[in-house]
Amino acid sequence: MKNRTLIKDLKEHVGTEVTIAGFVDVRRDHGKLIFIDLRDASGKVQMVALPNHKEAHELAATVRPEWVIAVTGKVNKRPEKMVNKDEPNGEIEMEVLEINVLGKAKELPFELGADTNIDTHLDYLPLTLRDKKHTAIFKVQAYTVKAFREFYTREGFTEFQAPKLIGDDAEGGANSFDVSYFKHTAHLAQSPQLYKQIMVGVFERVFTVGNVYRAEKHSTTRHINEYTSLDIEFGFITDHTDVMEIENRFLLHLEKELKAQCAEEFACLEEEIPAVPKKIPSMKLTDALTLIKKETGANKTDAMDLDPEDERWLCEHAKKEHKSDFIFITHFPTAKRPFYTYRDEANPMYTKGFDLLFRGVEITTGAQRIHDYDALIASLKEKGLDPEKFSFYLQAFKYGMPPHGGFGMGLERLTQKLLGLSNVKEATLFPRDLNRIDTLLSK
Amino acid sequence: MKNRTLIKDLKEHVGTEVTIAGFVDVRRDHGKLIFIDLRDASGKVQMVALPNHKEAHELAATVRPEWVIAVTGKVNKRPEKMVNKDEPNGEIEMEVLEINVLGKAKELPFELGADTNIDTHLDYLPLTLRDKKHTAIFKVQAYTVKAFREFYTREGFTEFQAPKLIGDDAEGGANSFDVSYFKHTAHLAQSPQLYKQIMVGVFERVFTVGNVYRAEKHSTTRHINEYTSLDIEFGFITDHTDVMEIENRFLLHLEKELKAQCAEEFACLEEEIPAVPKKIPSMKLTDALTLIKKETGANKTDAMDLDPEDERWLCEHAKKEHKSDFIFITHFPTAKRPFYTYRDEANPMYTKGFDLLFRGVEITTGAQRIHDYDALIASLKEKGLDPEKFSFYLQAFKYGMPPHGGFGMGLERLTQKLLGLSNVKEATLFPRDLNRIDTLLSK
Repeated sequence: MKNRTLIKDLKEHVGTEVTIAGFVDVRRDHGKLIFIDLRDASGKVQMVALPNHKEAHELAATVRPEWVIAVTGKVNKRPEKMVNKDEPNGEIEMEVLEINVLGKAKELPFELGADTNIDTHLDYLPLTLRDKKHTAIFKVQAYTVKAFREFYTREGFTEFQAPKLIGDDAEGGANSFDVSYFKHTAHLAQSPQLYKQIMVGVFERVFTVGNVYRAEKHSTTRHINEYTSLDIEFGFITDHTDVMEIENRFLLHLEKELKAQCAEEFACLEEEIPAVPKKIPSMKLTDALTLIKKETGANKTDAMDLDPEDERWLCEHAKKEHKSDFIFITHFPTAKRPFYTYRDEANPMYTKGFDLLFRGVEITTGAQRIHDYDALIASLKEKGLDPEKFSFYLQAFKYGMPPHGGFGMGLERLTQKLLGLSNVKEATLFPRDLNRIDTLLSK
Repeated sequence: MKNRTLIKDLKEHVGTEVTIAGFVDVRRDHGKLIFIDLRDASGKVQMVALPNHKEAHELAATVRPEWVIAVTGKVNKRPEKMVNKDEPNGEIEMEVLEINVLGKAKELPFELGADTNIDTHLDYLPLTLRDKKHTAIFKVQAYTVKAFREFYTREGFTEFQAPKLIGDDAEGGANSFDVSYFKHTAHLAQSPQLYKQIMVGVFERVFTVGNVYRAEKHSTTRHINEYTSLDIEFGFITDHTDVMEIENRFLLHLEKELKAQCAEEFACLEEEIPAVPKKIPSMKLTDALTLIKKETGANKTDAMDLDPEDERWLCEHAKKEHKSDFIFITHFPTAKRPFYTYRDEANPMYTKGFDLLFRGVEITTGAQRIHDYDALIASLKEKGLDPEKFSFYLQAFKYGMPPHGGFGMGLERLTQKLLGLSNVKEATLFPRDLNRIDTLLSK
């Protein structure tokens, strides 16, 4: 559209005639005076149609929420008693001279922003996503990805595009989706893990952002079957603490960027941007379990992993003791970690791996990886996996690899916890679960 | 690694002792003098091991290409006659004091950078990607994606994550891969088209970068079955020329960025960064076919589309007549374009759609889209599609949409043509085709 003024810029045009365009947010018909709030991607403004502009006034009486219109009008200062200091355009209004309907809308099934249940919300996503709370969620998500890329690019990491269609299910068969690939069966990748390790041999430091797939049958508030993974991997590390350190610094960068770019969105969702410690507290799994036993009496010291209750407890502990929303748990048992995880020389029953917990849940899994070819083959065999199936990947190690490590982080779960949302599906644009791909699958 | 100096920075350390780490590129053993070229992600340097440092000298005699080593040594200026001005580190060499082996490598099946055929190249990707020519290709690709995101972010576009797992194959069934999705059949998306249109209702201007899938059985030098699509869509346009304009400006930005960031990579591949015209020439399909008939005698004036030969001819024509590597072809027949394509009011047999041709092939398809709900339903029916199957998507239009349009561009094909590569598989990190997912499928 030529000569369109963005609504956020209207303040600079008081006293002049301009054209704006957007979606009708609400119409209040007072007979002679018809008020219309118009919304574009930049903001919102109140417009008033008066009877002296007959054609525009008649048209104004017919528009309804979500109609798309272009409006030419005069930007006026509001009378003193009508000024609303809480709104960006609360000191002005636009006098409607001409309306041009660009797109009509049918009557809405409910008001935009109405408090619907999650299923209704998902059924009507193309409409409900337009509500400012949902727009805020995905603005924060977009800035989170941007901050991730910016930080790691600055740290000398190169982005690469990882394939999602894979030939063999590298990390255990039960949780992968099968794809009919011509005369063969392929799978959807559960992570870019093996490819990002290969790429350490090429660029030393790499990151990738893309969809990953888990064919998990449970339906919870923190699982979805297709999600976006933020992944890094880099070489020439000393051990897993280098990976933790560069994740810590990313989170500090993220905090800074969210404060600079998304203060309005966090305010809209009534949530605080988390304060990231300069050094996130860290604890070995065995120490964490011992502490839980000591403090709560729950005897889980033989546990191989944390359950959701432990994760919540440890986060509360970190908040109380270290004023931190984050805590690293390290040295999970070798038996519970994937074949490529590096073992602790001091006790090979445990790995140089870690989880990052944030506000009650795990948001990252990371580790140093095995880089020695023979050790990797031994580890595959130990896990009952066939090295022959990994021959493509194993070349990277056969032909020389530095010590390396990395982590993966689910974008939607991170968004959920950043914004205090009760369900990860609210932080997923078009969530896929057991029962739904856009519409319900059972119907 | 603590205290590691990057090889590109060695020039600043002449006369001092530093530690570097990387991959052995080549070793030349002259008995007393052993030369090793060491490569890290930042550059390459020649090192020399002398017999007076006995331990290091003995170890130097054993290292082979692709071994990963850390080396402590003294940075010296080369004797005058050994200076090589063509290399970034051609004026220095490093005297080896200590070698620390971080990762051994088996003997290589061929020298890195050897001129292999495409199948051998693909069989050994974890190794062959390390060659500087291939590294250069994917550096250019990373900068291309970065330039894309930067440009559209600056233009007010918001990034979103499009789902790849879809319930109904929206753009025709034959070319989609089937996925076993619990008790249902899902499909892999052929494009983010329907989702990016929905998102115009949310953010007005959006872009997305992600994998798309085509179950096409042909095996050519320009097709792959999984590729990366760069997609934009935006509202409040006048017509398709707004889409062409904002693509033209992106390409100008890309040219600028590639010149600033990738001159070395283009030099390595002996290719020119294309000059993008301020205004890319444009021609209607019917005019293009008439011109081809007039100039070549080939009577294709009834053709509904361009064939590869036409695309090459038109690119040569644009080069000759307009000194342009790019040409837009517009107004393809409605019958050959997807249901959502906007029709030309002057002649509804043709669309307000376009292709962008670059160095002989189509790299973009774009268009204005239908935004009126009733017109969209009529178009679906006309194409023999069932509107009921599109009910989720259609909500966006039912509840008000502005005039809008966008384009999609294949990242790998763009990279291929930018760098003059003969096969798109060379511009795809881990290409999937009829016969191959990493390893050959038939074995």
